[in-house]
Amino acid sequence: MKVRVPASSANLGPGFDTLALALSLYVTVEVLPAPELAIVQRGYGSEIECSRDHLAARVVRDVLGHDNVTIDIESSIPLARGLGSSAALAVATAASAGAYDAFIVGAALDGHGENAAASYFGGLVGAAKIGDTYEAMNLALDPRISSIVVIPEQKLSTQDARSVLPKTIALSDAVYNLQHLTLLLGGLANLDLLVPEYGRDMIHELARERVYSPAKDLKDILLGAGAAIATWSGAGTSMIGLFDRYEANEKIEFVNKAINEMDIDAVALVLEVDLEGLQLVGGDEYGEVESKHE
Amino acid sequence: MKVRVPASSANLGPGFDTLALALSLYVTVEVLPAPELAIVQRGYGSEIECSRDHLAARVVRDVLGHDNVTIDIESSIPLARGLGSSAALAVATAASAGAYDAFIVGAALDGHGENAAASYFGGLVGAAKIGDTYEAMNLALDPRISSIVVIPEQKLSTQDARSVLPKTIALSDAVYNLQHLTLLLGGLANLDLLVPEYGRDMIHELARERVYSPAKDLKDILLGAGAAIATWSGAGTSMIGLFDRYEANEKIEFVNKAINEMDIDAVALVLEVDLEGLQLVGGDEYGEVESKHE
Repeated sequence: MKVRVPASSANLGPGFDTLALALSLYVTVEVLPAPELAIVQRGYGSEIECSRDHLAARVVRDVLGHDNVTIDIESSIPLARGLGSSAALAVATAASAGAYDAFIVGAALDGHGENAAASYFGGLVGAAKIGDTYEAMNLALDPRISSIVVIPEQKLSTQDARSVLPKTIALSDAVYNLQHLTLLLGGLANLDLLVPEYGRDMIHELARERVYSPAKDLKDILLGAGAAIATWSGAGTSMIGLFDRYEANEKIEFVNKAINEMDIDAVALVLEVDLEGLQLVGGDEYGEVESKHE
Repeated sequence: MKVRVPASSANLGPGFDTLALALSLYVTVEVLPAPELAIVQRGYGSEIECSRDHLAARVVRDVLGHDNVTIDIESSIPLARGLGSSAALAVATAASAGAYDAFIVGAALDGHGENAAASYFGGLVGAAKIGDTYEAMNLALDPRISSIVVIPEQKLSTQDARSVLPKTIALSDAVYNLQHLTLLLGGLANLDLLVPEYGRDMIHELARERVYSPAKDLKDILLGAGAAIATWSGAGTSMIGLFDRYEANEKIEFVNKAINEMDIDAVALVLEVDLEGLQLVGGDEYGEVESKHE
């Protein structure tokens, strides 16, 4: 079974480790029976060593109890840029291997429930780790919302981006994020209510600017282009700006020009919200995509 | 101008200092010109000294620049029980005194933006303190939702209830609340998705049990009666359980019986969600209520 799942942008400012939005970059995975493990990779991630430690191999063993398979992976999701590439790979591999709940398997092995949920369900999701498992739900999202995502050349592993975070925070900062998250959710449901303030965060973004200093300039470029909010995408280095879909297409050129003028090594793309999440890809020569909902 | 505003229940578990729900207990206030300050009080709060330090007098001075008025207050909202009585009084007094934005004045003088927002707008609200002011919005609320509120005899000032809170918290506890708040908001929009887990909090409830120990038993009674969630109401001592409206009326007797059996000095009431918020009360002899939206 060949499956395709979207990339995702987690956090969206105050929704640290909680919110994620599915985006129109994809990884396609097919797991097929084989005498022994082989991993065939095209696109992003093809440089990763094909060992039993590969995330896809670990997912297959979790689902099947062995890894005597060929895993065919084709990805258009850049790695280590905060676009949920590993969660997408984990969810897609789990589904292709026949997992009963690919979301739970993907979340558990990747460790990011919100990214896994966005890849699996599509759209805007909230997720929580509850005990040993994960729960997630789709949240109201204004259909006018689209995004411009700035993807820097510089990579940043989630582990490195997380190591700069404090273990404790001020109660007032937690309240700041709870309040902003709530107004952000209202704004995501109705773009007319969404303003840059609601995308502000006091938990992770400031600390992470220490490991990727162009972040603030990139967010300012997106806000200058008229983004409703501009935030880190996951653990970076990508930055996401949410726009009315017509405006995103109008402003992409302006954003790329501004990035060049600031001499930051990055490219901006219009990425639409993916509303489908995990999809089965037809097995015939036409390779059409079918929704899991059908 | 005579106005009426509802009580409110803040926090609702993980939405600490952020969420509030307007409830069907009311304070009615009329501010009238007079040679000097006089405060006429009926119902709850009538024991408060009628001085210039009275919250209503401070609100009037903030709005008018003087307090040469008679303030007529009639309240059915118990004080110091976490039902937003002071925010309701502040909002109602500000409106009756002619404030341009009674929500902002009420929030600033009472200090609880979420309570003031619920009293002003009605329904479910999220509020944030942003710089020197407050922003708030109504959030999606399933119309089937009603509540049983247990109101203990024991009072607890917000100040005392706040003094037990830590100044810093673990990052993991902040994430816990962000995740639970998000799923809670999904559940408040669709009662079918709401489960007790989403009402859990790691910021304030446990600390506050040290100053009002029956809290856990009262929440357990509400959950035992089938509440979708059961949480502290504001800073307590009241506890609120959210129910389907039919179930709330069916279970109120069971809840009061269970409270008596545990020998806790408290009474449980069915309180409906107030969707109107601030209303003008007709000035003629019929005293009918008009919505501010009309």
